[in-house]
Amino acid sequence: MAKELTPRAENYSQWYNDLVIKADLAENSSVRGAMVIKPYGFAIWEKMQSVLDSMFKETGHENAYFPLFIPKSFFSKEASHVEGFAKECAVVTHYRLKNDPDGKGIVVDEDAKLEEELIVRPTSEAIIWDTYRNWIQSYRDLPLLINQWANVVRWEMRTRLFLRTTEFLWQEGHTAHATKDEAIEEAELILNVYTDFAEKWMGVPVLKGLKSPNERFAGAVDTYCIEGLMQDGKALQCGTSHFLGQNFAKAFDVKFVTKENTQEFVWATSWGVSTRLMGALVMSHSDDNGLVLPPKLAPIQVVIVPIFRKPEQLQAISEKVEGIMKELKGRGISVKFDDRDTYKPGYKFAEWELKGVPVRFAIGPRDLENNTVEVARRDTLEKEILQLENIGEKVEHLLEKIQESIYQKALDFRDENSFKADSWDEFKALIDKGGFVYAHWDGSAETEQKIKDETRATIRLIPLNGKMENGRCILTGSPSRQRVVFAKAY
Amino acid sequence: MAKELTPRAENYSQWYNDLVIKADLAENSSVRGAMVIKPYGFAIWEKMQSVLDSMFKETGHENAYFPLFIPKSFFSKEASHVEGFAKECAVVTHYRLKNDPDGKGIVVDEDAKLEEELIVRPTSEAIIWDTYRNWIQSYRDLPLLINQWANVVRWEMRTRLFLRTTEFLWQEGHTAHATKDEAIEEAELILNVYTDFAEKWMGVPVLKGLKSPNERFAGAVDTYCIEGLMQDGKALQCGTSHFLGQNFAKAFDVKFVTKENTQEFVWATSWGVSTRLMGALVMSHSDDNGLVLPPKLAPIQVVIVPIFRKPEQLQAISEKVEGIMKELKGRGISVKFDDRDTYKPGYKFAEWELKGVPVRFAIGPRDLENNTVEVARRDTLEKEILQLENIGEKVEHLLEKIQESIYQKALDFRDENSFKADSWDEFKALIDKGGFVYAHWDGSAETEQKIKDETRATIRLIPLNGKMENGRCILTGSPSRQRVVFAKAY
Repeated sequence: MAKELTPRAENYSQWYNDLVIKADLAENSSVRGAMVIKPYGFAIWEKMQSVLDSMFKETGHENAYFPLFIPKSFFSKEASHVEGFAKECAVVTHYRLKNDPDGKGIVVDEDAKLEEELIVRPTSEAIIWDTYRNWIQSYRDLPLLINQWANVVRWEMRTRLFLRTTEFLWQEGHTAHATKDEAIEEAELILNVYTDFAEKWMGVPVLKGLKSPNERFAGAVDTYCIEGLMQDGKALQCGTSHFLGQNFAKAFDVKFVTKENTQEFVWATSWGVSTRLMGALVMSHSDDNGLVLPPKLAPIQVVIVPIFRKPEQLQAISEKVEGIMKELKGRGISVKFDDRDTYKPGYKFAEWELKGVPVRFAIGPRDLENNTVEVARRDTLEKEILQLENIGEKVEHLLEKIQESIYQKALDFRDENSFKADSWDEFKALIDKGGFVYAHWDGSAETEQKIKDETRATIRLIPLNGKMENGRCILTGSPSRQRVVFAKAY
Repeated sequence: MAKELTPRAENYSQWYNDLVIKADLAENSSVRGAMVIKPYGFAIWEKMQSVLDSMFKETGHENAYFPLFIPKSFFSKEASHVEGFAKECAVVTHYRLKNDPDGKGIVVDEDAKLEEELIVRPTSEAIIWDTYRNWIQSYRDLPLLINQWANVVRWEMRTRLFLRTTEFLWQEGHTAHATKDEAIEEAELILNVYTDFAEKWMGVPVLKGLKSPNERFAGAVDTYCIEGLMQDGKALQCGTSHFLGQNFAKAFDVKFVTKENTQEFVWATSWGVSTRLMGALVMSHSDDNGLVLPPKLAPIQVVIVPIFRKPEQLQAISEKVEGIMKELKGRGISVKFDDRDTYKPGYKFAEWELKGVPVRFAIGPRDLENNTVEVARRDTLEKEILQLENIGEKVEHLLEKIQESIYQKALDFRDENSFKADSWDEFKALIDKGGFVYAHWDGSAETEQKIKDETRATIRLIPLNGKMENGRCILTGSPSRQRVVFAKAY
C-alpha cells in the first residue's frame, strides 16, 4: 500500500499528490479545480478549525456569517482591491434553468438574467464593509471583532489539492477600530495567534514578517504573513493578516462619531488562514511511507493492531485492549482498535503509517503473557516494548515527545536551509539549491520584479524586528538597511 | 427598546421580522434575499451545530466537504430531481471580469464563458453521488455515513429572514447502504435524532411522519419529516430525512459487489436541517417583549445587572459578582456581568429580555447586606429574591426547570391547537382558525391539491405509527384508513 507512493527524491510534487489521495485526505472532483475533502482529511481540518476558533474567541472575536454573493459594483469601490481581486472570479448571471425546448435536459432561462451580476466571494471585505456601514455609528460600537468560517472561490488556472483550488475553505476575520494603532495591534495580535497555531499545533516553524509592496494584499496598507519552509526547499505562505488602514472605510463610507464628537473613518484589519494549511501540514513532516501527523491534530492518536492466528487469541487480546483503551481515553487520547479480520497486520501497519497515526500498538499472545505491548512511533519508525503498567501516562508523554520532536525536526531543517547571500552569483546559486535566502534588497518594486524574473524567487517577507544591518542590494548594489527573506514559493 | 416590537396580536409576521432584527439575530443584506447572520444569532446557530454534530458523530457519521458548484448536466441525471430542484438556481456562466473598456468599473469578460454552466448547489445529491461512484466498490465500503455542513442557494422569490432565504446554512447527510432495510432504518434513525434535538434542546415539540407524494423531496421514495406548530397556528417543517431508494445510485451508476459476489445498486438516504431552525426557535417561544431562548441553546444563560447610584456601590457589587460568576461558571453556566455605566438598569433589563437571556440577576446594595439576589425568569417574567448560598446549584435547577417549562408550554399550545375534522365544513372552519387538523384523506394527489387550492392547507404529514381508523375523506368521501395532519404552513 505505502509502496505505491512516489518517493520524494524522485518527484516531490507527485509524492505530494499521491499522498493526499492515498491517505484519504482529498481528491479532485468532477468540477474543474474544486476538491472533495474526504472524511479523514476533513477530521484534521475540523481539529484545526476548533483550535483556531477557540483562539479567536479567547482574543475577543465573535463569529458571524455574510452572503456568498457580492454585487459586481461593490468590487469597484476600493480601487486597488478591484485590481487584485475581482478578475478571476465565478460570475452568477442567471437565476433560473428551464427544460430544453428540444427535450435535451435543461438550459439556462435567458428570461432570468440578473440586472447586476453577482460574484461568488473571493474574499469578503466588500460585502462586509457594506454591512459595517450600518453597524458602526459611534466609538461605542468599536472595536468590532468578527470572524467568519466560509467557502470562497478564486478561478485559478493551475490547481493543486489544498494548495491552490478554485474553491477552498477558510476563516476570514474582519475588524473595525477607532484608531490606527489599535488596528495595527490587532493585525499583529492575529499574526501571533497564527504563529502559535502553526508552531505549537501543526509543528510547523514559521517566519513572521511583512510583505513587500508587490506581494501585499489588494487593498491593504500592510500585509503581515507567516511563511513555512517545505521539505523541497520551497516556501509556503501559511497565513496573512492585513492592516487595511482606512481604505475600505473610505470606499464604503464607514464613519464613526468619536468621544470628542468628531466624525472619522474607521480603521480596519482582515486576516485569514485556509485549507492550504493542510498542504503545509502534509509537506512539512511526511515521508515516503506516508503522512506524519502531529499528535495534537491527529484524528486518531493511537491505533492498536492485534497479532493473532486463532479467534480465541483475538478474543483474549480484545479483552486486554478494552482496558487499555479505557485508560487512554480517560486521558483524552483518541484511540482506535483495528480488529478487522479481513486484513493482515502487515497491511494494517502500512495503512496506518500511510495515514500518519502517531503511535501504533501491536499486541499479541506473548504480550498478554508478559503484560507488554510493542509501541511504534510514526515519526521515527522506532519500536520499543513497553510494560502495560501506567500505559496511559507513558503514551501521554510519548505523544508530547513526538509533538516536540516533529517541530524540532522541521526547525532543524529550516535552519540547515537558511542562508545568507552577499553577491548576485551567490544568491542565484543558493536560490537554485532551495531554502530561505537572507539578502539585501534596495526596497524597489522594480528590483524585486527583476530578481523574480531571473530566478523565480520572490521576497517572502521582510522580517519583523529583524536585525538592522547596513548592506548593498544583491542585484543593484544600492544601499539597504535590513536583509529580507527570498525563496521560491508555492 | 422592547417597546418597539410590533405585538404579535397586531401583526405576527411583522413581530417576527422586528424581533429577528432588533434582537441582533440577522438582517437583510445588500444581496436580494440573502441575510447576514449577526454574531448573537450566529452564536445560537453554533450551539445548534455543535449539538447536532455530536449527535451525528455518536451515531457513526463523519463529516466531509463537497464542491459548491455542480455541473448543469448532473441535474438531468435523476429525472424527478431535476423537475423539483434544478430550476430556481444561481447559475455561474463566466469565470472572469475585466476592466470596462469605457473605464466604468468592471464588466464580465465574454471570452471567459464556461463551456458548461455551473449551478450553485441547491442540495448536493448530484455531486455527492457522482463522487460515491468512485468510493463504493464492495459491500466492505458500506455503509458510507457522511454529513456536510454547507451553504446552499435556492432562488426564492419571496424571502423571510431564516425561514426562506436565497442562501442558507445547513447540514446535509448523504448515506449509502447495502440493503433497502438498512437505508430505511437510517432515515428513521435520523428522524429520531432530529426529534430529540427539536424537543430536548430547542424545546419545540414536533410531530413525526411521512410526507404525501405531493410534498415529497424531488428524487426520494419516501420523505420523513418533523413539523412544529408556531404561535400563529401555522406549521413549520423543521427537518426532513429522505429514503432515496436506488434512484441516485441508478442515475449515477453506483453499484457494489455483494458478499455473494453479485452486483447491485446501492441504497441511499439524505437528510438535512438548516438555519430555518432559528426561525422555529424564535416563533415557538418568544413573546411581545422579545426572544425567549431555551437555556440549553442560549449563548448567555444568566445576565447580572448591578443596581447602583455611586461608583463605590458598583465596586462592592462587582466584588460580590466575581464570586457568583465563578460559582456559576464552575457549573458550566454561561454568565455575563453587564457593568456598563452608559445605560440604566431599566434599559439593560429590556435589552436582555429582548435577547432572551433565560435568567436575569439584579443585585443592589440591599442585596449585599442580605446576601441575596433578585432573580427574574425570562419565560414567565416572574421574579423572586434568592439567598446567595448555593446559588450555582439553584440556578442550575432553575435553568432545567425553564427548559422543561418552555417545552411544556409549547406542547400545551400544540395540544390546544390540534383538532379532528370529520366533515368538509368543519375542516374549513378549523383550518381557518389555525393549528393542526387531523382528518381523513383518500390518498390521492388530486384531492390533496384541491384541498390546498380551496383552503391553502397542505398535508403536513402522515403520522408514523399513527392510529389506524376507518373513515371517509373529508373532501371526496372515499374510504381512508388513517387520519393525516393538515395545516397552513410556512
